[in-house]
Amino acid sequence: MSYRIREMAIKARAASLRLAQASTAKKDAALRAMGQNLLAYQDAIIEANKIDVQNAKEKGLKEVMIERLTLNPSRIAGMAEGLRQIATLPDPIGEVIDGWKRPNGLEIRRVRTPLGVIGIIYESRPNVTADAAGLCLKSGNSCILRGGSEAIQSNTSITDALVEVLDGEDIPKDCIQLIPYIDREAARELMNLNGLVDVLIPRGGEGLIRSVIENASVPVIETGTGNCHTFIDASADLDMAAEIVINAKCQRPSVCNAMETMLVHEIIADEFLPQVAPMLINKGVEIRGCPRTREILPNASVAIEEDWATEYNALILAVKVVDDIGQAVEHINRYGTKHSEAIVSNDFTSAKRFTDEVDAACVYVNASTRFTDGHEFGFGAEIGISNQKLHARGPMGLRELTTHKYIIYGDGHIRT
Amino acid sequence: MSYRIREMAIKARAASLRLAQASTAKKDAALRAMGQNLLAYQDAIIEANKIDVQNAKEKGLKEVMIERLTLNPSRIAGMAEGLRQIATLPDPIGEVIDGWKRPNGLEIRRVRTPLGVIGIIYESRPNVTADAAGLCLKSGNSCILRGGSEAIQSNTSITDALVEVLDGEDIPKDCIQLIPYIDREAARELMNLNGLVDVLIPRGGEGLIRSVIENASVPVIETGTGNCHTFIDASADLDMAAEIVINAKCQRPSVCNAMETMLVHEIIADEFLPQVAPMLINKGVEIRGCPRTREILPNASVAIEEDWATEYNALILAVKVVDDIGQAVEHINRYGTKHSEAIVSNDFTSAKRFTDEVDAACVYVNASTRFTDGHEFGFGAEIGISNQKLHARGPMGLRELTTHKYIIYGDGHIRT
Repeated sequence: MSYRIREMAIKARAASLRLAQASTAKKDAALRAMGQNLLAYQDAIIEANKIDVQNAKEKGLKEVMIERLTLNPSRIAGMAEGLRQIATLPDPIGEVIDGWKRPNGLEIRRVRTPLGVIGIIYESRPNVTADAAGLCLKSGNSCILRGGSEAIQSNTSITDALVEVLDGEDIPKDCIQLIPYIDREAARELMNLNGLVDVLIPRGGEGLIRSVIENASVPVIETGTGNCHTFIDASADLDMAAEIVINAKCQRPSVCNAMETMLVHEIIADEFLPQVAPMLINKGVEIRGCPRTREILPNASVAIEEDWATEYNALILAVKVVDDIGQAVEHINRYGTKHSEAIVSNDFTSAKRFTDEVDAACVYVNASTRFTDGHEFGFGAEIGISNQKLHARGPMGLRELTTHKYIIYGDGHIRT
Repeated sequence: MSYRIREMAIKARAASLRLAQASTAKKDAALRAMGQNLLAYQDAIIEANKIDVQNAKEKGLKEVMIERLTLNPSRIAGMAEGLRQIATLPDPIGEVIDGWKRPNGLEIRRVRTPLGVIGIIYESRPNVTADAAGLCLKSGNSCILRGGSEAIQSNTSITDALVEVLDGEDIPKDCIQLIPYIDREAARELMNLNGLVDVLIPRGGEGLIRSVIENASVPVIETGTGNCHTFIDASADLDMAAEIVINAKCQRPSVCNAMETMLVHEIIADEFLPQVAPMLINKGVEIRGCPRTREILPNASVAIEEDWATEYNALILAVKVVDDIGQAVEHINRYGTKHSEAIVSNDFTSAKRFTDEVDAACVYVNASTRFTDGHEFGFGAEIGISNQKLHARGPMGLRELTTHKYIIYGDGHIRT
């Protein structure tokens, strides 16, 4: 089979050069029209979605996957509302990030510009199609969307509705394209179009992300895995600690900013563990403890080495009693995924040491790791959470979908 | 053969966590001591270098490569001086980039931190060893250096001199390591140590850079290729244009920010080309022209399609007469490598359009593309020039060797 991914990317790049020049007003009008058109095509989108859901059932997909795949009027209204909200956000493009004058008189400005062409590789949830297209458009980028095969009908129908309005809004229609092929070769081609595609953002499970990192020569922003810790320091307010722990573990256990391991200072372990354990168990949490934890909580399961490195994404919590903050920091820097880490403490030196020494995108003092999120950070939107260090680290909003160019003014300057 | 690259990286990562906490004063003292020790070991370094040079001659390496490889007291003094200069630069680590308070009272700060472990893969020039080690140390990063096989004795000797002083300065010695193996498998292993190595920076020719991009799963900052243009607009001051063109082409033709193609507006082509051509020819430049150029300069060689896409790095200049600025921008966005592009113009609208629409790291008005350089930009140092859009674009100084972490303060905040 012969693919046309390169042709798609060439068109996307041409469109991106035009889109980079589009005014904020035009982009916002297009976003609102896109949302409007999703509502207008609601019936067609739901019909297409039914085919995907039927196929998924026949293939025996898990119930939770089918639930994520399924669209209804309320979810489509949510997508439309998402696009309208993106239209209300400030436009990052054109910001003068900084600027200065050199001793020789050269004037240098650093101006925020779109990245160009962004490839989004994602799984199951069809709402990512509208969401990613909207964020890319607002930030002046063309996107090439590669959804999961299980959602191909839904994604095609959504993309058709989005693209239909672009011409009328004077936005190049090639700035939103969905790859219509469902096999892996198409994705592989996308991942290696250096010079045409500026960045890939995978959104989905660990397997998807790993596959993109291993197969892509185009730069990738790694999102996802969060093996997050909360350390309860000797000086912690234990009621506060219990509330934070319950929130970080139980409020939404399936997401990357949920806590997976709790570390407890030995000085307060005897008091804190019996206090928090019943609250966790009451919420359905299985506790897997180190030997010292199990001395205090004899009913806890045994935590093995593997537990310290596991992102459960479920109601399971590994618990370890540590000698001191040094051991807590060491454990986190060894097993963590550099995502979100918290200390509950009332000691200034401990709080400072923890935030200084823990190597992670987001380091919290006296707050739940669940706040690692573009909306909670005030970015107004989120394309994902990066846990790599290059380009974007932590929640990624519109700003993280941009780069800069240097614009330099001279009056005949030559280098000597 | 079994390699120990992973063990090196594990040590480098442990050292990076300590180095991240080192004070500016300590890092600067170490940099000065490193420079001092290069001078102390000058004779040993030159002895080691002689072996490399001898081997290179026996292998029949090109004269220019041998010239780059050769060390002498003045070059070693230059390396030492480079390290002393890095010690005088402001420390980027710890800068509060921005910060805000959320409506719920959460306080968010974004603080500049080191990247962690940087792999530098480079060719021939042994001075890169000292330079890269110094820049990484100042920015709080461990480095794993992988120089070319032709410089292995020199690089080893330089690294030994650098590392020797670290312990005494209370800087972890594993923060500077040179890979002692000269075959390709060692480099390949380094390129795929995701989670241990945070970024790879290749420095060298196009083949080296391409190989790193294709073989690495660790994120890469692409440096290098510059197919740079200068567009002489209808409104240009032609004397200024000639000066800029001569400078951009001839001042140092072998580097990435030198001009490779000149685009000339048709309105002034009849006047400008006969004015500038003798000046170029006088400097030894071969002109390869489009048909319209050759009507005006009948002695010019013929430019073929390939010329527009070629980075000559030599005294050759492709010349094309264009209808208007639109055609110039289109040509640049088609054939350029998004590095450095210039317009010579006295027309406000043209200058604005050019800087808006040309997609490149550095876009100049009335200045030579030769200014794309960390020192010329005022960064005080340069690890390379990025022509990718992710993380760093354009000249890379110390700031570009950093990332950030978010530090978030709450008082028991939980997400609802």
